[in-house]
Amino acid sequence: MITSTANERVKAIRALKRRKERDAKGLAYVEGIRAVIGAIESDADIALLVTAPELLTSARAEEALGRATAARVERLDLSRKVFESISNRDGPQGIGAVIRQHFRSLRAVELEEGDRWVVLTATQDPGNLGTILRSADASGATGLILLEGGTDPWDPTAMRASTGAVFTQQLVRTEWAPFAAWARETGATVVGTAGGAATPYRGADYGSPTLILMGSERDGLSADQQEFCDRLVAIPMRGGADSLNLGVATSLVLYQVLHQRESTT
Amino acid sequence: MITSTANERVKAIRALKRRKERDAKGLAYVEGIRAVIGAIESDADIALLVTAPELLTSARAEEALGRATAARVERLDLSRKVFESISNRDGPQGIGAVIRQHFRSLRAVELEEGDRWVVLTATQDPGNLGTILRSADASGATGLILLEGGTDPWDPTAMRASTGAVFTQQLVRTEWAPFAAWARETGATVVGTAGGAATPYRGADYGSPTLILMGSERDGLSADQQEFCDRLVAIPMRGGADSLNLGVATSLVLYQVLHQRESTT
Repeated sequence: MITSTANERVKAIRALKRRKERDAKGLAYVEGIRAVIGAIESDADIALLVTAPELLTSARAEEALGRATAARVERLDLSRKVFESISNRDGPQGIGAVIRQHFRSLRAVELEEGDRWVVLTATQDPGNLGTILRSADASGATGLILLEGGTDPWDPTAMRASTGAVFTQQLVRTEWAPFAAWARETGATVVGTAGGAATPYRGADYGSPTLILMGSERDGLSADQQEFCDRLVAIPMRGGADSLNLGVATSLVLYQVLHQRESTT
Repeated sequence: MITSTANERVKAIRALKRRKERDAKGLAYVEGIRAVIGAIESDADIALLVTAPELLTSARAEEALGRATAARVERLDLSRKVFESISNRDGPQGIGAVIRQHFRSLRAVELEEGDRWVVLTATQDPGNLGTILRSADASGATGLILLEGGTDPWDPTAMRASTGAVFTQQLVRTEWAPFAAWARETGATVVGTAGGAATPYRGADYGSPTLILMGSERDGLSADQQEFCDRLVAIPMRGGADSLNLGVATSLVLYQVLHQRESTT
């Protein structure tokens, strides 16, 4: 059992709180019984299981450990103090996992009939990104394409908000130009949202496959990005505000596409 | 200009970070140019405008100040250091406002044909509550009824996420028993969500007026609460997870009700 917070392996895990380190290593750290069970059930690529036996007391923790053992994952035992030094939360449950990030190359993505992907430009809020992952999974989407930087899906807040969908959704990270070239080649329908669009989101034909292009929280889609879309749709605004939360707006469109798919097949 | 962080009025504003103090005083503190302009435009009941002239440099800040002056609100000038001591954020913009909370009594609410209200039971996350306020406003709902405690709409995170809707939506805080009695008296249709419901949320008749009953993030609606509903609807889940983010789920139902209202009138 590791009892020193200065242990090199412990320091390497703690460093994963920083995005730069996560990007460099291609790793991420998830914590908590529910999250670790979720990762195992989603066939996440787990590099290392981290436990603090002193903190692991519940039957559900035993279950998580049993599953991880069955998955033949290396396990690192830490003292309570050392575990708390890497924890992101109050009242740590004594179980965490180092996960290997999965990013696919855009060129490796093959769109199939019926597929829909969410394409995000410079999303700022990790909670929104996690919520979008969760809704993408729930509405039967295939994955997310993350453009122009933006927040990291392997951020602890994003992973938690995704409730496991970060492990099951396909993820691509690229820039606008290669995305635009690829989207045209595939022949997918690119649909964006814009406040001034003439077509309400309920009345649009989303085509198939569909790429749902969403702008950043603050700026929405740029004029060039709107121009690139095959269709622009508007979500009705009946109150004082002129926009919705990004996770909500994306989810409304995702569920409209799901409805259209299931109504026509 | 106040230059001491120990000034009694400054201490009273700083204390509004604590819910207990907000509840006791019936006040809240919002901060930032956008938030203060939003409060003024929404006719929020502003008790006091708080500024730090050293920090207020933009043209938009001047605009906010001009509007507040036109609204004849008392203004308190603070030194930069004192303003930073009450600020909730990095890089404070030098403008904030103390707002008088508005809560209505349930008995004072008169439901009209077409109205819909969101009824939340013990919502835990202030970001979710703010997002629901924002979606309620955008979809033309009238207000929120907050049951069984739960997070505070006057929490800084909730207010920020509401993007001003906390000022325009009607708010009621009560317990289950008086709510249940009132709901039956009004004859409103009470609609809840439940994973196992037979009716998909797109296929339900939401009646009018409509009360949309949503459970807490962790537990959803209890068996008794489900029993109380006139209709239970399910949101399709096509992935690995068995639920959506609470703000997303509520927004999907709100926009379905909006769609139904606008399709039938």
